[in-house]
Amino acid sequence: MKANNPQLKSWISVPENSDFPIQNIPFGIAKFGKKTFVATRIGNTIIDLHKIAKLGYFDVDAEVFNSQKLNKMMLLGKQFTRQVRNEISDIFNIENTATQENPKIQEALLNITEVTMLMPVRVGDYTDFYSSEQHAYNVGCMFRDPNNALLPNWKHIPVGYHGRSSSIVVSGTPIHRPKGQQRPNDNEPPVFGPCKLLDFELEMAFVTYKGKPMGKSISTKEAEDYIFGMCLLNDWSARDIQKWEYVPLGPFLAKNFASSISPWIVTLDALEPFRVAGPVQDPKVFEYLEYEGNKHIDIKLQVAIQPENTSEKVVSNSNYKYMYWNMNQQLAHHTVNGCNINAGDMMASGTISGNDESAYGSMLEISWKGTKSVKMNDGSERKFILDNDTVIMRGYAEKEGVRVGFGEVVTKVLA
Amino acid sequence: MKANNPQLKSWISVPENSDFPIQNIPFGIAKFGKKTFVATRIGNTIIDLHKIAKLGYFDVDAEVFNSQKLNKMMLLGKQFTRQVRNEISDIFNIENTATQENPKIQEALLNITEVTMLMPVRVGDYTDFYSSEQHAYNVGCMFRDPNNALLPNWKHIPVGYHGRSSSIVVSGTPIHRPKGQQRPNDNEPPVFGPCKLLDFELEMAFVTYKGKPMGKSISTKEAEDYIFGMCLLNDWSARDIQKWEYVPLGPFLAKNFASSISPWIVTLDALEPFRVAGPVQDPKVFEYLEYEGNKHIDIKLQVAIQPENTSEKVVSNSNYKYMYWNMNQQLAHHTVNGCNINAGDMMASGTISGNDESAYGSMLEISWKGTKSVKMNDGSERKFILDNDTVIMRGYAEKEGVRVGFGEVVTKVLA
Repeated sequence: MKANNPQLKSWISVPENSDFPIQNIPFGIAKFGKKTFVATRIGNTIIDLHKIAKLGYFDVDAEVFNSQKLNKMMLLGKQFTRQVRNEISDIFNIENTATQENPKIQEALLNITEVTMLMPVRVGDYTDFYSSEQHAYNVGCMFRDPNNALLPNWKHIPVGYHGRSSSIVVSGTPIHRPKGQQRPNDNEPPVFGPCKLLDFELEMAFVTYKGKPMGKSISTKEAEDYIFGMCLLNDWSARDIQKWEYVPLGPFLAKNFASSISPWIVTLDALEPFRVAGPVQDPKVFEYLEYEGNKHIDIKLQVAIQPENTSEKVVSNSNYKYMYWNMNQQLAHHTVNGCNINAGDMMASGTISGNDESAYGSMLEISWKGTKSVKMNDGSERKFILDNDTVIMRGYAEKEGVRVGFGEVVTKVLA
Repeated sequence: MKANNPQLKSWISVPENSDFPIQNIPFGIAKFGKKTFVATRIGNTIIDLHKIAKLGYFDVDAEVFNSQKLNKMMLLGKQFTRQVRNEISDIFNIENTATQENPKIQEALLNITEVTMLMPVRVGDYTDFYSSEQHAYNVGCMFRDPNNALLPNWKHIPVGYHGRSSSIVVSGTPIHRPKGQQRPNDNEPPVFGPCKLLDFELEMAFVTYKGKPMGKSISTKEAEDYIFGMCLLNDWSARDIQKWEYVPLGPFLAKNFASSISPWIVTLDALEPFRVAGPVQDPKVFEYLEYEGNKHIDIKLQVAIQPENTSEKVVSNSNYKYMYWNMNQQLAHHTVNGCNINAGDMMASGTISGNDESAYGSMLEISWKGTKSVKMNDGSERKFILDNDTVIMRGYAEKEGVRVGFGEVVTKVLA
């Protein structure tokens, strides 16, 4: 894929350690003044793709980019979005002096500080998987039995469940601590009140193109044709509400009050150079879950907590490559029963925890069920997330001097 | 509400035992030739509301009714849809000779046989509750312990979970038997193949208006302002897939291959005359779940199975009034944590089973986990649903000679 060439440079300047070199070219929705449009980003420059499209690039009605969500563009499918990314790569290539000198193209450029990034996708259905073995193991140890931490189905099924799409919000949107029923003491009746054990979950999510008709499945081999790209996702969780409500039908109010995502959808194409092998899967998986090649991705992930009026403290350094089940398997599983997917569906990884406790992806694990705390830079301690804390997640892949990243998902918790 | 007056008659003829007298006035999406429009129904007559709106009725841009889904209309809120229903009631009132003689109004009328009814709502988020005590008790008896059939949270929480909106289809759409992992024998590894225990679940669903912003709750008192109307819902379930996958995060592939709904959304206003008291709730519920007045509804429900080439056999006669938790409580619970709802969200009741086994709402219960079978009219027997069977659900409320119904949800199961 020529847009992935590590040698490429852009005539737009890219600061050192930027997540957004010309090899990235993610898609998002930006707002400048009263105008909302499909955008991409190189360095700290936002590019109004509606303006670029009106110049005749992309070989499509420019209205596709005059949109409040990416769905219209995604409906045109993978070949189209790939072509758009390649064309953007050409336009902003340092060797392309014609475009650099074109005032019409210059007019499409804005500084990141001039725009507001909005929710990029109208999410149809949202699914959350549970695909990190270390996370499932940790939870099993805490709530069940360290000797039988993984449930019997876990290594056969990429376990997942449906979540709430209405409350997925973009980075920068504050969220409110949820209220709900809890039963802190199993020998007493439940109580009602604000969640006392508010937690983040470090996840990544992928966004789909329109799939096949209902009744048809997508194979692991076909899966990538139906995946547009990825973002960071903070799957906010109310642990005390979850514990009381989740048997037998799964988490509900413990999760659906908010999930936060990073604003840029980084295409699967841009992540291709960072593929790595996944773990050996034993027991052998069913044929519909078998896959060929490297389908995991090496993406460094970080979580920090920033209490009000102090600097942030990094509490986790994890990696997307720690997944047991990859996206191809998740999508093949999701559709093996004929379930249909639409452009804009979002499927999250589940909490991504590494083997080492410095790589755990939730406070539940980091504080080991609240038995130990993490010291913040102002001396205060955290077992879970307090009001006015800001949780920041970051992620990037890096190889051969090219860093392709997601930026941040930053969320402040209000009372 | 004057449109509910039992004395009203329409100048459109209404067959005896029709679900659609002038007191109903449901909303749906009909297709006639190449045109798709918002419609209502009186007797067997379909009324093109786009044509009616263009005559200047409804005091709104007629384009609201020139739509493939009801969402645009629902976004205008309860006062608007109520006014539209009242106005339709006036237009087709038998005493209104002016409208009857108006050829422009006559042009808006079609026979039910001339149109195809389409999916009425673009469902944003779909939630399935689990609110019939007898159903929860039956399931608890079968899979756990008759002495502890209800889980500890069941009488405190209107238990619910998120389902799949993409695969909700309208009556008349055939569905495919899902494939998936099952573990018929706990001592052997799981197997993969077509579901062998395909089941229906007799449910009703309500459709919401746009709710409050994220972080705000809707009280039981306010709930009805946010509920547009109801339909029948068949929550197709693959029992063998469900059993193997559902711990710990709930049903997923066992449910998301298809759910079927009836095409007409009957407004909550039209159902108002059929309100009845619900059961005494003991233990006392939390304050946010308390409610005043009669919030249950007496709706007679029926399920029939029609094997190919033979007549249907009724296998269940249930009633929506058997619910333990009512819609007001469900919606108050759903939003008590600040979860936001949108116009077009769908919330289903859960399987509705009565005390008597003739009122059980699923084959799981009717066949008591496959231990007994039901004889069809062709002599064949059913414990679960076979390929080429058609499942038919019906529902109506009746009082003082007025019958307000939902029509049918009819679904054929293909291999």
